[in-house]
Amino acid sequence: MSERDVHRIEADHDLCERLFAELLHFSRDEPGVTRAAYGEGEERAHGLMRDAGLALGMKAEVDAAGNLFLTMAGRQPELPSWMIGSHVDTVPHGGNFDGAAGVIGGLAAVAGLRRAGIVPPRPVVVAVFRAEESVWFPASYVGSKAALGLLPPDVLDLPRADSGRSLRSHMVELGLRPDAVERGETLLRPERIHGFVEMHIEQGPILEAAGIPVGFVTAISGSFRHRKAVCLGRYGHSGAVARGERSDAVFAMADLITGLDALWAELDAEGQPATITVGEFSTDPIVHAFAKIPGEVRFCLDVRSTEPDVLERIEQALAALVSRIEAARGVRFELGERTGSTPARMSAALVTSLRDHAGRLGIACRTMASGAGHDTAVLAGQGVPSTMVFIRNQNGSHNPHEAMRIEDLCAAATVVAHLVAEA
Amino acid sequence: MSERDVHRIEADHDLCERLFAELLHFSRDEPGVTRAAYGEGEERAHGLMRDAGLALGMKAEVDAAGNLFLTMAGRQPELPSWMIGSHVDTVPHGGNFDGAAGVIGGLAAVAGLRRAGIVPPRPVVVAVFRAEESVWFPASYVGSKAALGLLPPDVLDLPRADSGRSLRSHMVELGLRPDAVERGETLLRPERIHGFVEMHIEQGPILEAAGIPVGFVTAISGSFRHRKAVCLGRYGHSGAVARGERSDAVFAMADLITGLDALWAELDAEGQPATITVGEFSTDPIVHAFAKIPGEVRFCLDVRSTEPDVLERIEQALAALVSRIEAARGVRFELGERTGSTPARMSAALVTSLRDHAGRLGIACRTMASGAGHDTAVLAGQGVPSTMVFIRNQNGSHNPHEAMRIEDLCAAATVVAHLVAEA
Repeated sequence: MSERDVHRIEADHDLCERLFAELLHFSRDEPGVTRAAYGEGEERAHGLMRDAGLALGMKAEVDAAGNLFLTMAGRQPELPSWMIGSHVDTVPHGGNFDGAAGVIGGLAAVAGLRRAGIVPPRPVVVAVFRAEESVWFPASYVGSKAALGLLPPDVLDLPRADSGRSLRSHMVELGLRPDAVERGETLLRPERIHGFVEMHIEQGPILEAAGIPVGFVTAISGSFRHRKAVCLGRYGHSGAVARGERSDAVFAMADLITGLDALWAELDAEGQPATITVGEFSTDPIVHAFAKIPGEVRFCLDVRSTEPDVLERIEQALAALVSRIEAARGVRFELGERTGSTPARMSAALVTSLRDHAGRLGIACRTMASGAGHDTAVLAGQGVPSTMVFIRNQNGSHNPHEAMRIEDLCAAATVVAHLVAEA
Repeated sequence: MSERDVHRIEADHDLCERLFAELLHFSRDEPGVTRAAYGEGEERAHGLMRDAGLALGMKAEVDAAGNLFLTMAGRQPELPSWMIGSHVDTVPHGGNFDGAAGVIGGLAAVAGLRRAGIVPPRPVVVAVFRAEESVWFPASYVGSKAALGLLPPDVLDLPRADSGRSLRSHMVELGLRPDAVERGETLLRPERIHGFVEMHIEQGPILEAAGIPVGFVTAISGSFRHRKAVCLGRYGHSGAVARGERSDAVFAMADLITGLDALWAELDAEGQPATITVGEFSTDPIVHAFAKIPGEVRFCLDVRSTEPDVLERIEQALAALVSRIEAARGVRFELGERTGSTPARMSAALVTSLRDHAGRLGIACRTMASGAGHDTAVLAGQGVPSTMVFIRNQNGSHNPHEAMRIEDLCAAATVVAHLVAEA
């Protein structure tokens, strides 16, 4: 590829505009948009992406779980493929960009290559994974795990949060093949993927604050979580029980949170990456009262870090805090089921290549970690050299106010197009 | 009255047993009992107490608000009366004893005097106040305030929490006269009450822990309260926003609570009486999520003390904490409406007399403060020499497991009977 060729590649801005507009049109669900995993919204979005891929001369394949793979042929079909992809489902009343940007960015990159008359050396696959948002079925990365034959079979029997119907039943309704998913049937072999790149809106404020359109991800956080934890104390009259005689579940929780926060401040000062979140916290609405010492709090805990050691340190501190507070406050914690994931390392070589391309193209960029989990972590976990490209985004994600400039996505997609055009 | 006469007075144990059994019979509402203020349960309980009073030869009078006054004649009808009383409504699924013990104890004392052939020097009135539990109508001491002509007229238009119908409408249904209540029509004049005594189950564990059946109350806590407070932060992705960039409403609340708790520990160490309770605490169940930084917490705050200075000190600390946390965490507190009451001093002379009688009768007792509010505070606030007699109770109050031994109540009622027999 000559210098001149390279500079002709530009991701297709109009295609992005059009696909986001069509997505929005059929998935609007005020406030925001809803595209339920294995529901009508996701299904229509898959259809839209399939048609767009076919219009770009790509080959379409769907696996047993409904993941869609659109392939642009390469000059050497026997070489392992590049893969660019993400998901198109959303959380309920979410935004139009989380997930979809990674698929539309991939198509825009392919369109840019095509318009420049470039046939890349390797096949370029745009992957559209199913069911990334675990709000519908309480499991992580259903589609990408199934795509690699990794989906635990019991996930097929999970009920969808709103419909109550099993994943299996939803799959059958869409003409998919849960039995084949159960057997681990796949279209993908990790060793046949040269590299995986997921473009995604940044879910935090870092790029926006720094005035930088694009970030390359060096690691994806792992986590440990307790989704249904409880602190049990003893109800009592708010005015009639002395401080030392109480088993106040809310005060005990305040101790727990300030204890974790103190450790977090310490980690922060050491430059160790971590987030600690108690997203849900509630006294019992049936029993609690204004004039009652609260005897029960239900809560969840989400701890993330790109460093396994940091996760371990926080988890040890949690256990110590729990014991100490139980003894001091006369309460009992039941943290319940623990789920978690190990941090995923991104491919340093891939990040370096992307940075080099961005540099040559004059696109401002930085490297960063991803605090959120993504399908990329599943592929990286199977040894596929992987990374993510974050797009600057003004209002966080998973909400109706997600904001992303199409030109920022196109900057990212142009960088990715140059990557796949090269080798 | 001779020494011999005095030793013949004993509160009527069987009457207590029978009245509690009848109350339980018609107000059972598993778990526990329910006697709604100005509802069927309270109405039947008033009827039961009226009949019991009439059977003891007492005169029955009902005021415009439905408060019942049962009078045992005294030797000198022109003297200001003793008054013994409490309420017979309960919280929903509460216990059988909170409130009712004070009325039944009063009737048992009168029965004891009668059986001993004693006509006391002054009239002895057993008062059965309406609607003490503010869970039905969100106002404090509806009945006793109305009895003294002190009920704010707008309270008549408050909807009952469950029926939604106004207090006025419930009064009319029972044949009462809300218009007269509005005009402040009363049967009572504070200066015509020589002293007021309310027997009540202790709502904390102090007497039970000390193995003492009876406590005399030296002060009733005042309070300040915020029933509908909110802490507003900013929602965000739990993994994608760094510690310093968050406006986490739950972490801010943890700061507030540990801050208040530190002050409380300090007050405790100084021997200053106080209680601080956050009985309700909840992230928004519609919007909150496991993987979201919580952007809102709704909570209530109940602070009590028998010392006005202590209340003021806590309220000042609260304001300082709120400002500090708002600045540090990027959140905003809206504490909402503040309600409160001033601490009520009990009559030291009355407490001394009761202790002397208990001592002579060989009944173990102690003095203590009441952290909870009671009708007694309303009478004391009008200059009536007042106190309360707490009865040992095993399982707190406002719950189905309230426990009180009839012999402990009779010990208290016997002491009170001696008090009114004497002067």
